[in-house]
Amino acid sequence: MQDFTFQNATKIIFGKEKELLVGQESAIFGKKLLLHYGGGSIKKSGLYERIVSSLQEQNIEIFELSGVKPNPRVSLVREGVSLCKQEEIDFILAVGGGSVIDSAKAIAAGVYYDGDVWDFFTGDAQVTNSIPLGVVLTIPAAGSESSEGTVITNEEGAYKRAVGHPSMRPRFAILNPVLTCTLPAYQTACGITDMTAHILERYFTNEKHVDVTDRLCEGTLRAIINNAHTVLEQPENYDARAEILWAGTVAHNDWLSTGRIGDWGSHDIEHEISGIYDIAHGAGLAIVFPAWMKYVYKHDINRFVQFANRVWDVEIDLNDLEKTALAGIRKMEEFFSSIGMPITLSEVEIGDEHIDEMAKKATERWPIGNFVKLHEEDVRQILQLAK
Amino acid sequence: MQDFTFQNATKIIFGKEKELLVGQESAIFGKKLLLHYGGGSIKKSGLYERIVSSLQEQNIEIFELSGVKPNPRVSLVREGVSLCKQEEIDFILAVGGGSVIDSAKAIAAGVYYDGDVWDFFTGDAQVTNSIPLGVVLTIPAAGSESSEGTVITNEEGAYKRAVGHPSMRPRFAILNPVLTCTLPAYQTACGITDMTAHILERYFTNEKHVDVTDRLCEGTLRAIINNAHTVLEQPENYDARAEILWAGTVAHNDWLSTGRIGDWGSHDIEHEISGIYDIAHGAGLAIVFPAWMKYVYKHDINRFVQFANRVWDVEIDLNDLEKTALAGIRKMEEFFSSIGMPITLSEVEIGDEHIDEMAKKATERWPIGNFVKLHEEDVRQILQLAK
Repeated sequence: MQDFTFQNATKIIFGKEKELLVGQESAIFGKKLLLHYGGGSIKKSGLYERIVSSLQEQNIEIFELSGVKPNPRVSLVREGVSLCKQEEIDFILAVGGGSVIDSAKAIAAGVYYDGDVWDFFTGDAQVTNSIPLGVVLTIPAAGSESSEGTVITNEEGAYKRAVGHPSMRPRFAILNPVLTCTLPAYQTACGITDMTAHILERYFTNEKHVDVTDRLCEGTLRAIINNAHTVLEQPENYDARAEILWAGTVAHNDWLSTGRIGDWGSHDIEHEISGIYDIAHGAGLAIVFPAWMKYVYKHDINRFVQFANRVWDVEIDLNDLEKTALAGIRKMEEFFSSIGMPITLSEVEIGDEHIDEMAKKATERWPIGNFVKLHEEDVRQILQLAK
Repeated sequence: MQDFTFQNATKIIFGKEKELLVGQESAIFGKKLLLHYGGGSIKKSGLYERIVSSLQEQNIEIFELSGVKPNPRVSLVREGVSLCKQEEIDFILAVGGGSVIDSAKAIAAGVYYDGDVWDFFTGDAQVTNSIPLGVVLTIPAAGSESSEGTVITNEEGAYKRAVGHPSMRPRFAILNPVLTCTLPAYQTACGITDMTAHILERYFTNEKHVDVTDRLCEGTLRAIINNAHTVLEQPENYDARAEILWAGTVAHNDWLSTGRIGDWGSHDIEHEISGIYDIAHGAGLAIVFPAWMKYVYKHDINRFVQFANRVWDVEIDLNDLEKTALAGIRKMEEFFSSIGMPITLSEVEIGDEHIDEMAKKATERWPIGNFVKLHEEDVRQILQLAK
C-alpha cells in the first residue's frame, strides 16, 4: 500500500426533498450567491423554484449564470469569474450534473487568480484557493459533487483538461434520488458508464497489497452492475436510483483510491474524443476502456483475472489465465452494450480522420496513464482498436 | 435506503514514519496540548520521544496524562477534564488505541460542561461541543480514530456506556502500520474481532435496498479475513499490517453505514461483560456475536444466507436456506477460534453468576438492538447460548 493522506469533508445530505435544505446549508458560507446551472430543465421540473425559495428564506442575494453545456466551456467560466469578482460573490451553488459542478469549481478557483483561468489547465498557474461551493446534484455520473477535480473544455483548439485542488471540493452536496428519476435512458447509461470508469481507473494500479480498496472497488462495481438494468427498465424505481446515485459519489470521492495510484489514461484519451466531437463523456469512456484493456492487459494478467473473477464471476482457468482475463473484458463490453452504450468509434460515426491528432494532443505534455505509460503511438493504437 | 447525512472530516495520514508530522498537524489547532496515553509501551518503543520532539519543534506546551487502561475509566476522564480546565488546554493528542482515544474524547467534551462528565453517559446531559483532538494510532481495533463515539466505564457499579457527537471526531489520525508490528498476537486478534464486529453491527439491518453498502461491508470483511492469519503468523509483515490497520478505520468511520441503521445489540451486551469482568472488548465480542446470531437469524434468513454466501463462500442451498445461514455463522465462529479468540463464556472462565445482572443492566434504559429489539429475557437467553 502507498502512503497517503486522505480528507474529504464534503457534507452529504441524501434523501427525499433534501433540496429544501439548500438555503440553510448555503447560508453558513455566504450571503451573495452565484446560482449556476445548465438550461431550462430545472425550471420545467420545478427544482429551480424550490431552490430559489429556500435561498430567499435565508435572505441570500442570488446572482444567476446559466447555460452550462456538457463538456463545460472555459468561456462561460471566464464570465462567471468576472461576475463573481464584480459582485463580490462569496458562495457558488451548482445545480445540475458534473458539467455544472466542474464549471462552478473552475469559477470558484478563478476568483482568487488575477490572470486567465485557463492558465490553471495549461499548468501555467496553480490553484491556491477557491471560494466555497455547494451542490444540488441532478445527474449521478461524474462524482464531482464530492471530488476536488474539474474538467473544462477550451473551445479554441478543442482542448479538454483536468485540474484538482482541495479548495474546490464542495462543502455540501444534496443528493435526492427523486431528482434523477426523470433522467432519459441514454443519459442514465452514460452516467453509469462514467462511474464505472472512475472505479476502473482506480482499480488498475501497479500497487501490490491493496486488498481493502480492491474489494471496495469490486463491491461498488457489482452494486452498479446489479442496479443498472433496473434503473433503465424502471426509471422511477427509487431504491435502484438511490443505489446508482450513491454509487456515483462513492466511485469518485477518493475512498476507493486510498493507498493506490490509479491509471487515468482512458480518461485522458476520452477527453480528446469528446473535446473534438462533443460526444457524451460516458459514451466516450465505453468506447475507450475496452480498447485500453485489450491493449494493456498483458502488463498484469493477474489483475485482469481478479477483475474477471470477482466482478464478473468468470471462473478462473488456471491453465489459461489469458482466456480468463479476456473473458472479463468481454463481459464488461457486453455490459456497456446492454445498457445502450456504443463500444466502438464507428457506432458514433467517428472515423479515423482525427486519430493522429488526438493521439498527439493526448500526449503532448507528457505520457499518460500510470498502470501502463502511454506515448503517442500507444494512444494511436488504442484508438485504432476502438474503431 | 434510509435518508442520511454524512460528513467525516478526519484527516488520515497513513504510512511509514508519519508520526513525525504530529507537531505540525497539532500546531494548527492549539498551543497548549494534553498528551494522553496508556502506560510505558510508547516509551519503551521510542514513540513517546519522537512525538514529544515533534511537538516541541512547534513550540507546543505539553501537559501529560497517562494511565489509560483498557475499558477506560471515568475517574481518569474526570482528572483530564480538571487538568484541561485548569491549564486552559486547547488540544488533546491521544497516542494509543481505542481506550486512549475514547478517554480523550470524553475529556474533550467534558471541558465544555460544568457538571460531572458521567452525565453524558447516563443521558442526563448532552454533549454540545468538544475541544479539538488528534490521534496517533497504535492499535487497529476500535475505529475510534475517525469516529464520533466514545465508550467509557464507570467503575462504581461497573457501567460501560457509549456516547457520540460530531465535535468528538478527531481532526487528524496518524496511522503508521509499523507501530502495529509489535502488537502481541492476542491483542492483534482482539483488534481484528473488534473491527469485524463493527462491520457486522452495520451489516445486520432491516433496511432493504442497501446494495452499495452491503457490498462495501462484505468486501471489507473479506479483506480482514484474508489478512488476519498473515498478521498473526508474520507479525512484521508491513503489507498485511497496513491492510488490517486501514480496514479497522474503514470498519467504523461511517462509510459503511450510510443509508442504513445498524444493530449494535451485541456491543451493548458485550459492554456488560467487559464492564464487570474487564476482559478485552474484542474477546467479549467473539463470544457474544455468534450467540446473538444464533438467537436472531430467523428474523431475516435471507440476510444471513447472503452473509454466508458472499463473505464465507458458502454455497446457497435453495432447498435449505436455514442450513446455509447456520453454515455462515459456523464459519464465523471457526474464524474467531482460528485467530485465538474465545467463543464461549466458559473459555474465559465466566460462569452464570452475573448473567441475570448483565441482562438487567443491558436493558434497563431501553430495549437494545435495532435488527431485533432485545429485552431483558432475550439478553439472558443470548448469554445462556454463549455459555
